[in-house]
Amino acid sequence: MKLATYQNGRRDGQLMLVSRDLANAVAVPDIAHTLQQLLDDWHELSPRLEQKYQALNAGTLDGVVAFDETLCLSPLPRAYQWADGSAYVNHVELVRKARGADMPESFWTDPLVYQGGSDSFIAPRASIPLASEDWGIDFESEIAVITDDVPMGISADKAAGHIKLLMLVNDVSLRNLIPAELAKGFGFFQSKPSSSFSPVAVTPDELAGNWQDTRVHLPLVTHLNDGLFGKPNAGVDMTFNFAQLVAHVAKTRPLGSGAIIGSGTISNYDRSAGSSCLAEKRMLEVIADGKPSTPFMGFGDRVRIEMFDDAGHSIFGAIDQQVVEYKG
Amino acid sequence: MKLATYQNGRRDGQLMLVSRDLANAVAVPDIAHTLQQLLDDWHELSPRLEQKYQALNAGTLDGVVAFDETLCLSPLPRAYQWADGSAYVNHVELVRKARGADMPESFWTDPLVYQGGSDSFIAPRASIPLASEDWGIDFESEIAVITDDVPMGISADKAAGHIKLLMLVNDVSLRNLIPAELAKGFGFFQSKPSSSFSPVAVTPDELAGNWQDTRVHLPLVTHLNDGLFGKPNAGVDMTFNFAQLVAHVAKTRPLGSGAIIGSGTISNYDRSAGSSCLAEKRMLEVIADGKPSTPFMGFGDRVRIEMFDDAGHSIFGAIDQQVVEYKG
Repeated sequence: MKLATYQNGRRDGQLMLVSRDLANAVAVPDIAHTLQQLLDDWHELSPRLEQKYQALNAGTLDGVVAFDETLCLSPLPRAYQWADGSAYVNHVELVRKARGADMPESFWTDPLVYQGGSDSFIAPRASIPLASEDWGIDFESEIAVITDDVPMGISADKAAGHIKLLMLVNDVSLRNLIPAELAKGFGFFQSKPSSSFSPVAVTPDELAGNWQDTRVHLPLVTHLNDGLFGKPNAGVDMTFNFAQLVAHVAKTRPLGSGAIIGSGTISNYDRSAGSSCLAEKRMLEVIADGKPSTPFMGFGDRVRIEMFDDAGHSIFGAIDQQVVEYKG
Repeated sequence: MKLATYQNGRRDGQLMLVSRDLANAVAVPDIAHTLQQLLDDWHELSPRLEQKYQALNAGTLDGVVAFDETLCLSPLPRAYQWADGSAYVNHVELVRKARGADMPESFWTDPLVYQGGSDSFIAPRASIPLASEDWGIDFESEIAVITDDVPMGISADKAAGHIKLLMLVNDVSLRNLIPAELAKGFGFFQSKPSSSFSPVAVTPDELAGNWQDTRVHLPLVTHLNDGLFGKPNAGVDMTFNFAQLVAHVAKTRPLGSGAIIGSGTISNYDRSAGSSCLAEKRMLEVIADGKPSTPFMGFGDRVRIEMFDDAGHSIFGAIDQQVVEYKG
C-alpha cells in the first residue's frame, strides 16, 4: 500500500490512499482520517485499507482524484518518536578519519542512534527556513521505517514484524553548530532543525524483492540544484538493518505506534556512487586535497531526494526543497 | 486551571478538569476530549474551560466525580516533544567535580538540554518496569512546562507567554548505561527509559506569587521508600528560567503545541535541603568519603514526588512509583 497525508488546514492533515503508480489518490474517512489513527489501530484497519488499495489500482473506486505531491505534508506531519540511526558505519568511519580520529571498534557492533525532535516536520515540497547560512546547512538523504507498538526488550528477529511503512527522509543538519553542541555531551539539539519526509509512505511489500533482511536494496538518488549528487545503494554497506535499529531503540522502553526510525545517511564504500550529504563529500575532499571545496547550502539552493523501482518509476515521490532565509 | 487525563482504554485518555483542591473532577467533552486537543486550540478553548473551572470550584457544575489520582495517566500520555534541560547548573558542576572534571564556563550562560523520547510516558502511579537492576536505576525529580505553538527564533521574553501549563516529572535514568552511551557522542537513548508526569497539570496562575520570572519558588519534595529524600526549592539556584529554556530549544526549529520542556534535576547549593536524584547524593558521598554509600534503586523500591502550596496542599497530586522487574 501507498499512503500520503494531504494538507487540509488541520495539524495532522488528511490521510490519502495513493495508487501504486502515484497517479491517483482517494481519502478513506470510513477507515481513518489521519495516518496516526491508522497506525494506532493498524492490525484491524489495514486489511480493510488493503482491499480499497486493490480497487484503487484496478480503477474501480469512486471519489478518486489525481495525486499531487505538492499537496502533501510529511506522512506523519508530527510524530511521537523520531530516532535516527547511523547504520552506514563506513560513513561514520570516514568522518572520523577526516578529522584524524579513530572510531571505536564497538561502532561495528553497537548501533549509534540519536533521539530526534518530532513535533514540527516540514512538508516534502516546502522550503526549509533557516536564519543563517553561517550554520553550515546540510541535507542528509536517508530511509526511515514506521512501526506499530513495539514491546520493550524485543529481539531484532521479532522487531522486523513491527515495521509497517517506509519513507525517505531529509534529515537537515547544521554542521557548524554540531561541534560545540556535541562537546556539551548531551547530543544534538539546535544542530538538528526540522526534518522532512517523502510525500508517500509505502508498506514493505511495495518494494518486493528489493526489501530483503529489512534493508532496501535500491539506490537513493540525490540531486543538488541541477546536478546529480549521489546514488549510493541503500542495501549495500548498511551495517545494521532496520530490525536491529528498532531492537536497539526499544531496549529499555517500548515504542508507541507511529514511531519513526531512520537509517542515517546512506553511504557506500564505493565512492563513485556519490554521497548523500555535503559533509561526506567535504570529508572526501579533505582526505584527497587537505581541505573541502564544496560549500554548504546557501539560501536558494535546492535538494531533491527520490528512489526508483527497477522499472524506473518513483516509489515514494520526491522530497524537493529549497533553503530560504527565515526572518521570523 | 487544573487538568488531568483519565485512563479510558484509549491511547490519549480522557481530559478531566480538576478542582483547585484536587477533590473533584469533570470531563469536558463539549470543549475537548484530550489534553492535546485542548493545547492544539488553546487560544480559543481555554476561556470556555476557565468558565467551567470557576463553576467546578464553586460546586455549581453537574456531572462531577471525586478526583482519583490513581486513574490518571500522565497529562499527555504521549507527546510530540519532550526536551529536558539542566537548568540547575550547580548540580552539573557537582557531578563533574565528583569525577574530577572541570565544567566549561559556558555552561553558566548556554543551557544544556537533551532531546527526550515522548511516545511512551508512564502513568504517575504506575510501576516502572525495567529488566535489570544492574542498569543503575535512578529517579530525577523535576518540573516541566507545556507550551502552545512557539515560533522558531523566539526571544526568552516572548517565550514566557507561550508557557501554558506546569507539571512535575520523574525523569528516570539508567546511570550505569550513561557513560558508555554518552561516550558514543550522540547523547542519551537507552539510558533514558520512559518518564512519568504528575497526575495534574496546572496553569501558571495556580501558583500565584510562587511563579515569578518563569521559575517555581516552592520546594519539590521527594520521598524514597519511607524516608524524606530531599526538598530543594525549585526557585533557588535555577540558572536558566523556563522562558530561557524554551527560547533555547526553539532557536532553529519551531515547537508544536503540547511541547514539554523540563527543568532538569532540582538542586540547591544548600545541601541540607537534600537532593532530587540518587546520583547527586552519591556524588556528595564521593566528595565527602571517597565512595558512594547509597545504592541505586532496586526492584520494589518506591519514589514519591510532590509539591505543596503555602497552605500545605498538594498542587499537582503525587508521582508515586515502584520499580518492578520487567520480564517481557
